[in-house]
Amino acid sequence: MAWMNGDGVVKRIGIIGCGALATVFLEHFREVLAGAYCLSGIHCRSEDKGRSAAGRFGTRFCRDIAELLETAPDIVVEFASGEAVRAYAEDVLRAGADFVCVSVGALADAGLRASLISAARASGAKLIVPCGALGGLDLMRTAAAMGGQSASIETVKAPKGLAGAPGLQGRALSGEKAEVVFEGGVQAAIEGFPKNVNVAVATALASETADLSVIIRSEPGAKGNCHTVRLENPAMQAEIRIRSKPDPDNPRSSISTAWSVLALLKDRESPIQFF
Amino acid sequence: MAWMNGDGVVKRIGIIGCGALATVFLEHFREVLAGAYCLSGIHCRSEDKGRSAAGRFGTRFCRDIAELLETAPDIVVEFASGEAVRAYAEDVLRAGADFVCVSVGALADAGLRASLISAARASGAKLIVPCGALGGLDLMRTAAAMGGQSASIETVKAPKGLAGAPGLQGRALSGEKAEVVFEGGVQAAIEGFPKNVNVAVATALASETADLSVIIRSEPGAKGNCHTVRLENPAMQAEIRIRSKPDPDNPRSSISTAWSVLALLKDRESPIQFF
Repeated sequence: MAWMNGDGVVKRIGIIGCGALATVFLEHFREVLAGAYCLSGIHCRSEDKGRSAAGRFGTRFCRDIAELLETAPDIVVEFASGEAVRAYAEDVLRAGADFVCVSVGALADAGLRASLISAARASGAKLIVPCGALGGLDLMRTAAAMGGQSASIETVKAPKGLAGAPGLQGRALSGEKAEVVFEGGVQAAIEGFPKNVNVAVATALASETADLSVIIRSEPGAKGNCHTVRLENPAMQAEIRIRSKPDPDNPRSSISTAWSVLALLKDRESPIQFF
Repeated sequence: MAWMNGDGVVKRIGIIGCGALATVFLEHFREVLAGAYCLSGIHCRSEDKGRSAAGRFGTRFCRDIAELLETAPDIVVEFASGEAVRAYAEDVLRAGADFVCVSVGALADAGLRASLISAARASGAKLIVPCGALGGLDLMRTAAAMGGQSASIETVKAPKGLAGAPGLQGRALSGEKAEVVFEGGVQAAIEGFPKNVNVAVATALASETADLSVIIRSEPGAKGNCHTVRLENPAMQAEIRIRSKPDPDNPRSSISTAWSVLALLKDRESPIQFF
C-alpha cells in the first residue's frame, strides 16, 4: 500500500553510527522512505567506516556532531551507543531536530533524561523512543495513562549473548542447563547487563513503572532472543512476547530494531497513522 | 512524570459521539491532557445526550458536522460508530483536521479507506488508528515494513458478547461449552460479527496482511474479552495477548479504547514520544 506522502516536504535525516543497525537501516532507506525523506549526513567515530558508508549510501560524512547539524537535519537517528546519546542528544534537540534514541538504555539515567526532555521542550523538537527489539509501547502508554499499572520483563538469551556481562562476576554460564542469571530492578540490570537492557529501559519508560521487575535467563540452544513483557492494571492484563530469529545475513538478533525506525519514520509522514 | 508541553500551542479537540467511550474520555480529558488540549465541541446523534455531555464537560454542542468543523478543531475523535466514520471522516480530513478513527472496523471498506487516505494526503491532515482494545500496532508496522509477514487474531468472548451476531444465523451459544463460532478472513468476519471486528481490522491494516486469519471463540464464564495476535516474518515471531477485565463502574470491556486515545493525544504533544 502506497501510503507515503510523495508530494509533501522531503524531511532530512542525519545518522549517528555506521555499525550493523545503521547499515540495515541505510540499505532499506530508499525503498521504504523515498519521496518523504532524504539523508543529510552521517557521523560515526570511525572515519574510515563513516566515509565508506557515506560513499555507499550517497550522503556526506561529518567529522563531528556540529558538522552533522550543519547539514540541517529535521531528524537525527542514533544507531551508535549510550555514549553517543550522552554526548550528542542534547545538542541535536537544542538545535531543533528530533532525536530517535535507539540506545534507549542511556535514558535510564534520570539526570540525562531530564536534560533531554528539557531541551526538547525548549526547542519543540521530540525525543523519540522506537519500539526497537520490542513492541507494544502503545499498550504500555495506554496502561500508564490509566494508572495502577505494574510490569515485568523476562529476557531469554543463549549463554553466548550474555557472556562477559559484569553482572556474572566472571562466572561461566552452563552450556547445558537453563538458568536465571539476573532477577531485580532496572537500575541493577543496567549495571549488571549493560548490553541487554535497552528493552527493559524502554518498557520502564513507556509503562512508567520505575519498579519494573527484570529477569534475565540463559538458555543453551536458544535461537536468537526472546523478550516477554507482562503488564497489568485494574482493568486489563497483557502479555507481549517477541522472539527474534537470527537473520541469515546478519547473526545479530536486533535487525528488527533498524526496521522499527524505518516503520516509525514512515508512519510520521504517512496520511494514515497508527498508535 | 510531567511530560506534557504546558507552554506550547493548545490544540483543539472535537468529539463525535456521547456514549460510554466518549464519556470515559471526557471524564479524564482535563486530568491527562490539560495544558496541551482543549475541547472545541461535541456532536452526537442524540441532541439530549449531546447537550447534557456538552454542559457537563464545558464544551459546545454541535448539531451537525459542519457546526463541529466551525469550532476549528485540530483533531476530531470519533467515538460513535462505523456509520459516523462513513458520514463524517472525509469532511473532517478535507477540512484539514486529523481524524482519530475509533470505529476502525469501518476502514475494512477499501473504497472508504482510499477516499480517506486521499483526503488526508490532499489536506495534510492525518487519519489516525488508535490501538484501541488492542496493542502492538508498532510491532505490526515494523513487521509490515520488513515484509514476508503473516498474522492471525483470536478473540475469546463470553457467549453474551456474541449473541445475536448475524454470523450465528440465529444459533444460540452454549452456556457450558467453549466453541469456535467463526474461523475465516477479515471480510467474512465483518459480515458475520460486525460488533467484534475493530481489533481484527486494526490488525489487518497495521500488519498489512489482507489475508489475516480470524478466529472468534465463545467461552462461557469468560470475564471480559481476550484478544491474541500472532505475527510472524522470516526474522521474528511475536504474540500479543490482551485480557480486558470488566470495569466495576462500566461493564463494557473496551474502556481501554478510550484510554488509548488519551495516551495517543498525550504522546503527540509530549517532548518524549514512543513508537
